[in-house]
Amino acid sequence: MIFFDNASTTKLCDEAVDSLIKYSVQKFYNPSSKYKEGVENFNAIQNVKKYICEILGVEFKNNIIFTGSATEASNLAIMGSVRSSFKKMLFSAGEHPSVYNTALNLKTKYPNLTIEFVNLQKNGEINYLELENLLKTGDVDFISIMHVSNETGAINNLERISQLRKKYAPNAILHIDGVQGFGKIPTNLQKLDIDFYTLSAHKLHGPKGLGALYCKNPSKLLPQIWGGGQEYNIRSGTENLASIMAFKSALDLIDTTSQTYERLKNFANIFKTNLRILVNKNQKLKFIENENLSPYIISLSVVGLKGETLLYMCDEKGLLISTGSACSSKKSGNRVLENMGYSKEEVEGSLRISFSIKTTLNEVNQGCEILANCINELYEKIKNKRR
Amino acid sequence: MIFFDNASTTKLCDEAVDSLIKYSVQKFYNPSSKYKEGVENFNAIQNVKKYICEILGVEFKNNIIFTGSATEASNLAIMGSVRSSFKKMLFSAGEHPSVYNTALNLKTKYPNLTIEFVNLQKNGEINYLELENLLKTGDVDFISIMHVSNETGAINNLERISQLRKKYAPNAILHIDGVQGFGKIPTNLQKLDIDFYTLSAHKLHGPKGLGALYCKNPSKLLPQIWGGGQEYNIRSGTENLASIMAFKSALDLIDTTSQTYERLKNFANIFKTNLRILVNKNQKLKFIENENLSPYIISLSVVGLKGETLLYMCDEKGLLISTGSACSSKKSGNRVLENMGYSKEEVEGSLRISFSIKTTLNEVNQGCEILANCINELYEKIKNKRR
Repeated sequence: MIFFDNASTTKLCDEAVDSLIKYSVQKFYNPSSKYKEGVENFNAIQNVKKYICEILGVEFKNNIIFTGSATEASNLAIMGSVRSSFKKMLFSAGEHPSVYNTALNLKTKYPNLTIEFVNLQKNGEINYLELENLLKTGDVDFISIMHVSNETGAINNLERISQLRKKYAPNAILHIDGVQGFGKIPTNLQKLDIDFYTLSAHKLHGPKGLGALYCKNPSKLLPQIWGGGQEYNIRSGTENLASIMAFKSALDLIDTTSQTYERLKNFANIFKTNLRILVNKNQKLKFIENENLSPYIISLSVVGLKGETLLYMCDEKGLLISTGSACSSKKSGNRVLENMGYSKEEVEGSLRISFSIKTTLNEVNQGCEILANCINELYEKIKNKRR
Repeated sequence: MIFFDNASTTKLCDEAVDSLIKYSVQKFYNPSSKYKEGVENFNAIQNVKKYICEILGVEFKNNIIFTGSATEASNLAIMGSVRSSFKKMLFSAGEHPSVYNTALNLKTKYPNLTIEFVNLQKNGEINYLELENLLKTGDVDFISIMHVSNETGAINNLERISQLRKKYAPNAILHIDGVQGFGKIPTNLQKLDIDFYTLSAHKLHGPKGLGALYCKNPSKLLPQIWGGGQEYNIRSGTENLASIMAFKSALDLIDTTSQTYERLKNFANIFKTNLRILVNKNQKLKFIENENLSPYIISLSVVGLKGETLLYMCDEKGLLISTGSACSSKKSGNRVLENMGYSKEEVEGSLRISFSIKTTLNEVNQGCEILANCINELYEKIKNKRR
């Protein structure tokens, strides 16, 4: 089985399995317990937070909040920041549903609040000029823009976004959904002066059921879950000890060095080039034109064919891919691609291939061949039907 | 090491470890994915929900919502139910912080809402007459009372509570925090006509980071986390597949039969009786007087000694116990025992011993001996100091 749906979730790595078992069985003690076995676990969690801060290039100051998912972390950044005094909040039109749908929900809770969506360019990045114009109005309190698109792999220019914020709305809170960027694209939050950054464990060979929110200033965040006071009183509930320790083990494997980045970039290029060669010439393949794409995600559209049919055909042949993010698989269409200007036909033919650090060249070649065969086969089938 | 803090958390059982690995490594696919491997996982989760409904004695109608913790589940029941039209909400004074602190927070969000707390009797149960009188006012919209006290093991009479609700406030929503009851005390929610019931995986040899909420009528619940629409659009975020499947394996081991109940009751009696015998006569031990206590939790007070000092002494000798729930360990005093009428000295000397289905008679005897020795030793130390 070749798994090219790593933007949806990843397989837990062996090192993480070991930690998961160790902290579920041998060292399962509640980190909030008073006895030394509990205190040791509490300290172990604090050390994982310190390690995450190192990766993010920021100082550790009790500023990492673990949550039950990245979705919860992004919800916390938004719902924990919004105040009734807020006038305007900006979101990119390409946000993951965890941000996008939370933004839509704000309208029902705060009827006087203006919610604006910054449209996307054809290349998948946000429209920076539109962002600039919206910021110039002077009444923006909050900005949420994702680091890397889960749909297209387009990397938003965080330096530029941060500079625009500094220039036009220095008091606006800046949240970045870093789920597809963290551990893949080198990021220094200190330099960028970002207020919140969301990350997920299960996109990096860590466990599902664990997200985290980096907060520049946690004291400004209103808790969204009340209880025993865990996570500095911001997110109560018994700490998910074993998953946190498993995440640490997965983090030990992440690699944002240029060598790894180049290897993955090479894989993406090989995949695209070979697919163009292997697919019959009269079949239209559309890739996003952008030099600044994450090498972990390839978005393509097989115009004239149904992406969903191709997905099931690939599944039968041992290749797992996606037609869009799993998180929104139950909805038809694709809000993000539509916003980028894709036609209905292009949206219907869209597929997402996503790699991980563990992807091999052999898998890239085999996976490409399977997909090309499915495309050719389906095209032939349709051609014959028409006759 | 003897672990008598099972009301705080439990060790993951071997069967759950196997499932955790299986669904993290071999079958790690995102349950929201379209390919058959994802759909299979989605169905597997639905089957776990069906199984939970069977245990609860209710029909499965997409009425189990998985959350990141029981704390989140109770928060969801409360925050997802409250409406601006609500006049009065009742909570027991003995609630776990996940309910109690959420109740306190309601006052800041809904200033016109009346929040009332039903006081506890000396035996740890709620004061049913007080509940009756509060319900008689006729303007109660919501009632939240825990099944079994995490502090004392006192079992609230759910039949009586349900009948009072039916008689005086038939439209009031009834939420029961079942964290310390589920899988230990036989419960039939159908007969009781309860609206919400909270449960936790890690109190039953399942994994931390997973809670669930049974909802009689999920459509009445407002989502508290927005995103990709998982959990019937009520609680978004990638499903915590491996933990859910591990919880199922832990559930296979639960046993609410009278035989097991009697065995645990016997353990509790042996512990109490032997402790009275082993502790020097002039030392005052106070146990809660109630025939209706969970056999899984023993609350006692060693009057004149500090519970915290005893906890550390026991830890050194290989016995792990608690001075109160771990969830509130960072706060001094004990709100629940104080409400029951404990003196300051009794609160300071309070300890909690908690068993699990895996507790053995040998552990009960050894643990009792260690605690008795620590009590006698500390008492001698204090006596010698006074001389």
